[in-house]
Amino acid sequence: MSQPVLIALDWGTSNLRANLLDAKGHTLKARSAPGGVMAVPDRDFAGALLRLCGDWLEADALPVIASGMVGSRQGWQEAPYLDCPADLALAARQCIQVALQTASGANRTVHIAAGLRCLHDDGAYDVMRGEETQIWGAGIPGGRCCVLPGTHSKWAWTGAQGQVARFRTYLTGELYGLLTQHGILGRLMVHGQARPAAFEAGVRRGLAGHHQATHLLFAARTAGLMGQVEPEGLPDYLSGMLLGIEIAAASEAGGQAALAGGVTLIGDDGLCSRYETALNLAGIASARAPAEATTQGQWLLARAAGLVGAA
Amino acid sequence: MSQPVLIALDWGTSNLRANLLDAKGHTLKARSAPGGVMAVPDRDFAGALLRLCGDWLEADALPVIASGMVGSRQGWQEAPYLDCPADLALAARQCIQVALQTASGANRTVHIAAGLRCLHDDGAYDVMRGEETQIWGAGIPGGRCCVLPGTHSKWAWTGAQGQVARFRTYLTGELYGLLTQHGILGRLMVHGQARPAAFEAGVRRGLAGHHQATHLLFAARTAGLMGQVEPEGLPDYLSGMLLGIEIAAASEAGGQAALAGGVTLIGDDGLCSRYETALNLAGIASARAPAEATTQGQWLLARAAGLVGAA
Repeated sequence: MSQPVLIALDWGTSNLRANLLDAKGHTLKARSAPGGVMAVPDRDFAGALLRLCGDWLEADALPVIASGMVGSRQGWQEAPYLDCPADLALAARQCIQVALQTASGANRTVHIAAGLRCLHDDGAYDVMRGEETQIWGAGIPGGRCCVLPGTHSKWAWTGAQGQVARFRTYLTGELYGLLTQHGILGRLMVHGQARPAAFEAGVRRGLAGHHQATHLLFAARTAGLMGQVEPEGLPDYLSGMLLGIEIAAASEAGGQAALAGGVTLIGDDGLCSRYETALNLAGIASARAPAEATTQGQWLLARAAGLVGAA
Repeated sequence: MSQPVLIALDWGTSNLRANLLDAKGHTLKARSAPGGVMAVPDRDFAGALLRLCGDWLEADALPVIASGMVGSRQGWQEAPYLDCPADLALAARQCIQVALQTASGANRTVHIAAGLRCLHDDGAYDVMRGEETQIWGAGIPGGRCCVLPGTHSKWAWTGAQGQVARFRTYLTGELYGLLTQHGILGRLMVHGQARPAAFEAGVRRGLAGHHQATHLLFAARTAGLMGQVEPEGLPDYLSGMLLGIEIAAASEAGGQAALAGGVTLIGDDGLCSRYETALNLAGIASARAPAEATTQGQWLLARAAGLVGAA
C-alpha cells in the first residue's frame, strides 16, 4: 500500500468525512461520522476530529486539510471569503491554520480552506463553502459552466484560466423540502414512487414559466387539485418544476453562450442524474465530474499550499 | 333597527364569520368563531353553524349564503368551479343548496357560492374560493385589475362588463411563512420590529430581479450573513422581496396596459398597506376597496339569486 501523505476532511453541515490520501491524491482509507458543523458537542471540533481519526493523527505527522462549513462563523474557525474571480493558487495561499494536539500530546495543524464570495451587479452577494474545493478538483476548463446541485444549488462560470469568475445560488433543494414537508401542497402528495413523466412535465413547466416562479409553485397544487397530476406524481412534478426554474434562470443570468459547450455536473449520482434529464430537456449538454472531485480538490489545494510534494 | 333579511357566512380555512344583513346589505350583527373548514369536528358543518348562530336561524326563516372554502371538496359540500370569464349573474345561478334543520326542527337552506377556475395559455389552472365574492362586492369596473393579498395572493383582471376575465395566484404569503418558520434563512432573523427601510430595499430587489426568484430568496440570507441587512430587518426584507417578485411577475403576466388606471386592493388593512407601499415603489397607483367587500358581495349574490329583494 502507498504511504499516506495527507488527511483530507470534508466537514459540512451534516457530516464529517475523512480521507487518508497518498502522494497521488488517491484515497487509501475513508471514514465518516454524522454530526456536521452544527452538531459538534460544546463546539469541541478538535475532540470530534480526534474521535473519528485520532489514530491517523497519532501515527504520522501528516498535514490536515479541511473544506466546507467548518470554515464558517459557526465552524471551528472562520476562514474569510475570497472574492471572485478566485483560483486554486489564491485559495491555497488563503487557508487558515488551526493548531491541534493529539491524545499523546503531538502537535498537528489543520488547514481550513476559505470559501468564495461573489458580488453581483445588483449589489447582492453570493457565497459558497466547500463547493469551491469540488470545483478545483473537477478540473473545470476555462470558459465553462459547472453546476453543483443540492439544498442550495450553485452555478459557477469559469474565466479563461479556469478561475471561478462568478457564481449564483438557487434555493431549489430547500424550497422542495419546505413545500413538501410543511407546505399546503405537501398535503396532496403521496411519496415514495418515482414518476419520470411527472418529473419531465414539471421540468417543462418550470423552463417555460420561470419568470412566474411564485405563481408556478401555486400551480403545482392546482395541478393536483384538478387531477392533472396524480398524488404519487406530485413530488416529482414539484421537483422537476424547481429544477426547470433554476435551469432557465441560471441560463438567462449566465448567458446562453456560456452553455454552448455544455455544463459539468458535480455532485452525488442520484441528484446529478435528475439534473441530466432536466438539462437535456432544456437542450443543454452535460458531463459528470469524477466522483472523487472533493478529495481531488483537497489534494490539489494541499499541493498548491506546499503541504504535500508533487507526485 | 332594520329587519334582518340574510345570514351571510364567510367560511374559510381558519375561521367562520357570520353576519346578519338588512335589506340594504348592511351588517346588523356580526359573530365569528375559530375553526375553519379544516377544523370542523367530525365534518359536522351543520352543528358548527348552529353553535355560532342557531338563534338567528330559529328566529326567522332567513336565507343563508356562504362563501369560501366551505364549498371546496374538504368543505360542507363541493360547489363546482365556474370557468372564467364569469360574472355575478352566473355565480348567482350556480350556488348549490344544502338543507339544514334547526334544533327546533325548522328547515333552512344554505346557498354555497361556487369558486372560480381559470385556464391559462400554458395549460395550467388557477382556482379561487371566496375571493370571487369579495370581487363582486368591491364593484370592480370593467378593464381593471384587482389584487387580493394573502397566503395565496390573487391578481384578477376584469373584462369590459366587469366579469372576472382571468386571474393568477402567487404563493407569496405561504413562502414567507415557510422560509421564516422552517427555513435556514429564518435562523438569522429577529422578529417583532417593523423595519420600513428593509422592507423597501426588499421590494426594490424583488421588482428588479423577479426572473431570478429562487436565487433572490438565497440572496436574502446572504444579505443577512454579509451584514447588508440587520437581523431585525430580515423579516421585512424577505416580505418586501416576495411582494416585489409578485408585483413584477403579475405586471408582466397581465400587461402594463392593464395597470394604467391603477389597481384595487381588497383585503385587511395591514396587508393592503404593505402592498400600497410596494405598488407605489413599482410605479403602480392603488385604491382600497371598501372594508365590507365580503358581506357586500354576499348580499349582491343573494339578491342576484333572488334570495332577497332589491332594497
